[in-house]
Amino acid sequence: MDERLKRQLDFALEIDKEKNILRQTHLSGHGRNENDAEHAWHMAVMAYLLREYANEEVDIAKVMLMCLIHDIVEIDAGDTYAYDEENLKTQKAREDAAKERIFSILPDDQKEELTALFDEFEAYESPEARFAHSLDNLQPLMLNNSNGGSDWVEHGVTASTIYGRQRKTKLGSVKLYEVTDQIIRDHILRGTIPE
Amino acid sequence: MDERLKRQLDFALEIDKEKNILRQTHLSGHGRNENDAEHAWHMAVMAYLLREYANEEVDIAKVMLMCLIHDIVEIDAGDTYAYDEENLKTQKAREDAAKERIFSILPDDQKEELTALFDEFEAYESPEARFAHSLDNLQPLMLNNSNGGSDWVEHGVTASTIYGRQRKTKLGSVKLYEVTDQIIRDHILRGTIPE
Repeated sequence: MDERLKRQLDFALEIDKEKNILRQTHLSGHGRNENDAEHAWHMAVMAYLLREYANEEVDIAKVMLMCLIHDIVEIDAGDTYAYDEENLKTQKAREDAAKERIFSILPDDQKEELTALFDEFEAYESPEARFAHSLDNLQPLMLNNSNGGSDWVEHGVTASTIYGRQRKTKLGSVKLYEVTDQIIRDHILRGTIPE
Repeated sequence: MDERLKRQLDFALEIDKEKNILRQTHLSGHGRNENDAEHAWHMAVMAYLLREYANEEVDIAKVMLMCLIHDIVEIDAGDTYAYDEENLKTQKAREDAAKERIFSILPDDQKEELTALFDEFEAYESPEARFAHSLDNLQPLMLNNSNGGSDWVEHGVTASTIYGRQRKTKLGSVKLYEVTDQIIRDHILRGTIPE
């Protein structure tokens, strides 16, 4: 087998490990913790089906690929919970090292391409990145809402913390932010989230 | 919330159940059984990275979406193991009923679009469908190979049965079929697969 194909297949096998990286979110039906690969799959399908709500025109293939690869670095860096202040401080350094190791398995051109796509997602600066982030926020919120907000209760998260993160959903999609806002208000009213 | 968006979000929540549909394949590192959502994610990433090996030019966004949605019907129909003769007989009827129920949650235009895409995948008649099937075959073979072929051993599958399925990989990618063939030959030599 030639070197290029070997590196591509080595990478394909390496990312299998993403299926073992657990998130704080639980599956609907009060299920088990979700893992990163499932989350990425769900985000990508939602991105495609909800693309009409992106604030700006997006290259949907690029958004989907961004969704699919955005958590690969967590194979080494682990999942950092959105409301975990301590771990958020070291997140960037851990993810940079992971990005270098994991994407280096690929042939150089694909390493560059995926690294650039990952960086673009992180930078929030393109329409695709902003819309992908809207899904990264909406997908776990949807699952958590379906479970009566139990992930928020478990972590004792407050409304201002949730809004701090979810406000960015608006940058990618005002329409999806309205859904988000409605869900959060509803949970404040029901007392799931302390104000 | 308007009716269209509500249906889209209902569908998004419904497909969360795909994460509970287990396959016969095991994760690398002699891990647990893989589920359909993870498999779809893995296939879609592999499709993108290996697209240069497709026999014909493909619309890669279409291939990725096909990979992402091709197992949604298994939420109702369950996973049918590739070498389970009995269940293969009823697979089509079970999957048709599932397709109708699940895609009907979507707005009509998206129901039609996803149904057509699913049917196209099943029909093996477009370059995109053929290439997506190559990945549907290669991805579990890669995992199984990484585990020393233990999924084949567990099911007592023979070389001719494996080749019966894997030959179709060639329709989408001669190059990826060479990888497949090499792996199968290797396992025959090592005695994992009876000839």
